[in-house]
Amino acid sequence: MKVYLDNNATTKIDPSAYELMLPFLNEFYGNPSSLHQWGSQTHPALREAMDKLYAGLGASDLDDIVITSCATESINWALKSVYFDYILNQNRNEIIISSVEHPAVTATALFLENFGVKVTQLGVNEEGICTPQDLREAISDKTALVSIMWANNETGMIFDIKEMAEIAHEFGALFHTDATQAVGKIKVNLREADVDFASFSAHKFHGPKGVGGLFIKKGLKLTPLFHGGDHMGGLRSGTLNVPYIVAMGEALRIADTMLSFEDSHIRRLRDKLEDEILSIEDTAVIGSRDKRVPNTILASIKGVEGEAMLWDLNQNGIAASTGSACASEDLESNPIMEAIGAGDDLAHTALRLSLSRFNTESEIDYAAKQIRNAAQRLRAISSTYAYNPNSYK
Amino acid sequence: MKVYLDNNATTKIDPSAYELMLPFLNEFYGNPSSLHQWGSQTHPALREAMDKLYAGLGASDLDDIVITSCATESINWALKSVYFDYILNQNRNEIIISSVEHPAVTATALFLENFGVKVTQLGVNEEGICTPQDLREAISDKTALVSIMWANNETGMIFDIKEMAEIAHEFGALFHTDATQAVGKIKVNLREADVDFASFSAHKFHGPKGVGGLFIKKGLKLTPLFHGGDHMGGLRSGTLNVPYIVAMGEALRIADTMLSFEDSHIRRLRDKLEDEILSIEDTAVIGSRDKRVPNTILASIKGVEGEAMLWDLNQNGIAASTGSACASEDLESNPIMEAIGAGDDLAHTALRLSLSRFNTESEIDYAAKQIRNAAQRLRAISSTYAYNPNSYK
Repeated sequence: MKVYLDNNATTKIDPSAYELMLPFLNEFYGNPSSLHQWGSQTHPALREAMDKLYAGLGASDLDDIVITSCATESINWALKSVYFDYILNQNRNEIIISSVEHPAVTATALFLENFGVKVTQLGVNEEGICTPQDLREAISDKTALVSIMWANNETGMIFDIKEMAEIAHEFGALFHTDATQAVGKIKVNLREADVDFASFSAHKFHGPKGVGGLFIKKGLKLTPLFHGGDHMGGLRSGTLNVPYIVAMGEALRIADTMLSFEDSHIRRLRDKLEDEILSIEDTAVIGSRDKRVPNTILASIKGVEGEAMLWDLNQNGIAASTGSACASEDLESNPIMEAIGAGDDLAHTALRLSLSRFNTESEIDYAAKQIRNAAQRLRAISSTYAYNPNSYK
Repeated sequence: MKVYLDNNATTKIDPSAYELMLPFLNEFYGNPSSLHQWGSQTHPALREAMDKLYAGLGASDLDDIVITSCATESINWALKSVYFDYILNQNRNEIIISSVEHPAVTATALFLENFGVKVTQLGVNEEGICTPQDLREAISDKTALVSIMWANNETGMIFDIKEMAEIAHEFGALFHTDATQAVGKIKVNLREADVDFASFSAHKFHGPKGVGGLFIKKGLKLTPLFHGGDHMGGLRSGTLNVPYIVAMGEALRIADTMLSFEDSHIRRLRDKLEDEILSIEDTAVIGSRDKRVPNTILASIKGVEGEAMLWDLNQNGIAASTGSACASEDLESNPIMEAIGAGDDLAHTALRLSLSRFNTESEIDYAAKQIRNAAQRLRAISSTYAYNPNSYK
């Protein structure tokens, strides 16, 4: 049996998004900027796709949703252009982020330190989140931007974006959210949350890899990251990737209609798998279930190195992760585990399981069994992490 | 009959590239950074695609070819990071470009003027090119970067990149080339030309829209434009767009095998169409044929506004352009025509026809006939550009 439980790394494309995209990869290949019929025949599908994005994200017609090549691009754009447009010529030089942001946020912010930006990282509690109160204590009239993720990629924990955006605005700061791991899993209404900028990526909600977007609230200036032929109203130059835009719109439309399924069916399967893991002795899961997106489990199986567990599961047809796929090629300890203060031994035991609507109950039952078996096998041969039974709590 | 003659704007995807890509859009959807089989099963195809890119561009294994989302990204990256890495802390602050670069180069360079960079634009001759001698007269030990396109998007004129790169190096400057309109049309050997950086985009050589690359010569530092999860050796973060990378590699491999066909068959069709246009009284074409890529014609049909011609051709199933697709949504005069000093009336008469290997002889015959008919019709009703017969020469 093959069971893909790594949907926070990337997802299978939705069949309907795939079907809708194909003609634009092949037959309708015109450049949308062209004045002839090959160009204009792409316009209805593009308009429809953009409408789906605005509807799915709760954006107003007056806001900008600008298509990018991925959330990493959107995030780099937002943070770097806030530096150019709001920090360079103003009396504010601080960017506040959480200590558990995706590397796209953290590395970009730290890059800006070279140019005099002060980066403040809010610590997280044992559930892996920082609270509005944490932000209130750190923020000042020197803060130019607050950038906090909507949901964490490893734990699935949801941050209180609405209240944090409000606090940022109270202090005259801008607010960006990396919504990559929230969109498609829980309702993300950008207008209601009143954020200034939001980044997202199609391949996390069953769209293709290589397309994403940046939401820019009405009236806000943002120097382009890509200067050039003035595509997308001059905000992001580069020939439009029509097929992927069409697919992203459809993927979001479908994800939006599936949110209650996500919150019932997927949550039930997730909870079942989590219960099974927790029934193995000396295991733990980060964060309360009701504060997490419905598909994610970040577990620690004491005495079992994450990479060994992945290898074993992989042999049995199961895809999982030790944390962010972006970092999984090196054998570092899990950064969330470090952020919440777990010891080195625990930080190496992280196992992330992330479900999607394409998972079935029998897959979950199979995975639960394989995880139990693997834990037993690996604990028996564990040397690096000598396993002491019942040392959790 | 439908005749697509706007291949410098974008191209139809090659059927073989399309077929090779499809499984990675659908079935093999893993994130290449993942440690499990869904990730690793993408690796052979990725490696093969990268090998095709290195071979097709004449790069050495020690150079970097970094995948980006388009040439616009590559160009923004090269120019902006040259600012960060070579201008900020050195005694050189000048970037030299030609006055006929794509807006991605020109707009990016001009953006850097805000930060103290001096941008020098080399004028062009009546054929729309600048020569190595022009560069030699402008360059100095204050020049940090020279950025000259390999072939022009509107005229198809080829620049002497090898000699200009040599001159740049002689003065201790770096050399970037926007090779977007050359790759797939003529042989582009980056090692032989000894450029430091080169940008290209798949959709100009029958690959998909939304993927391109930046060549970085061995040993050169370049601060990322996208900071984040350290994909592509830390040079360009963001989850890899596996299907498009696979398609781009295959598209380049095929384009490379078709270069002699391009230089014989496509050139013959182009010359035939050009002869037909020039047989209409009071027409002109920019640049000698032997100094152009084999597929491009930039014609002026006196007394006929470019947009009117496009509209008429479009009605008859023919796709053409007044110049760069990037600028065709506004009714500005053609920038190349302006750069070579054509009067306002001529600058509005530009008609660009760009062929591909998918064009047939009967298509070209049909297009020639339609262009002649349209010229006649439009001259008869021309008011804005009163047509005076035989005023050319």
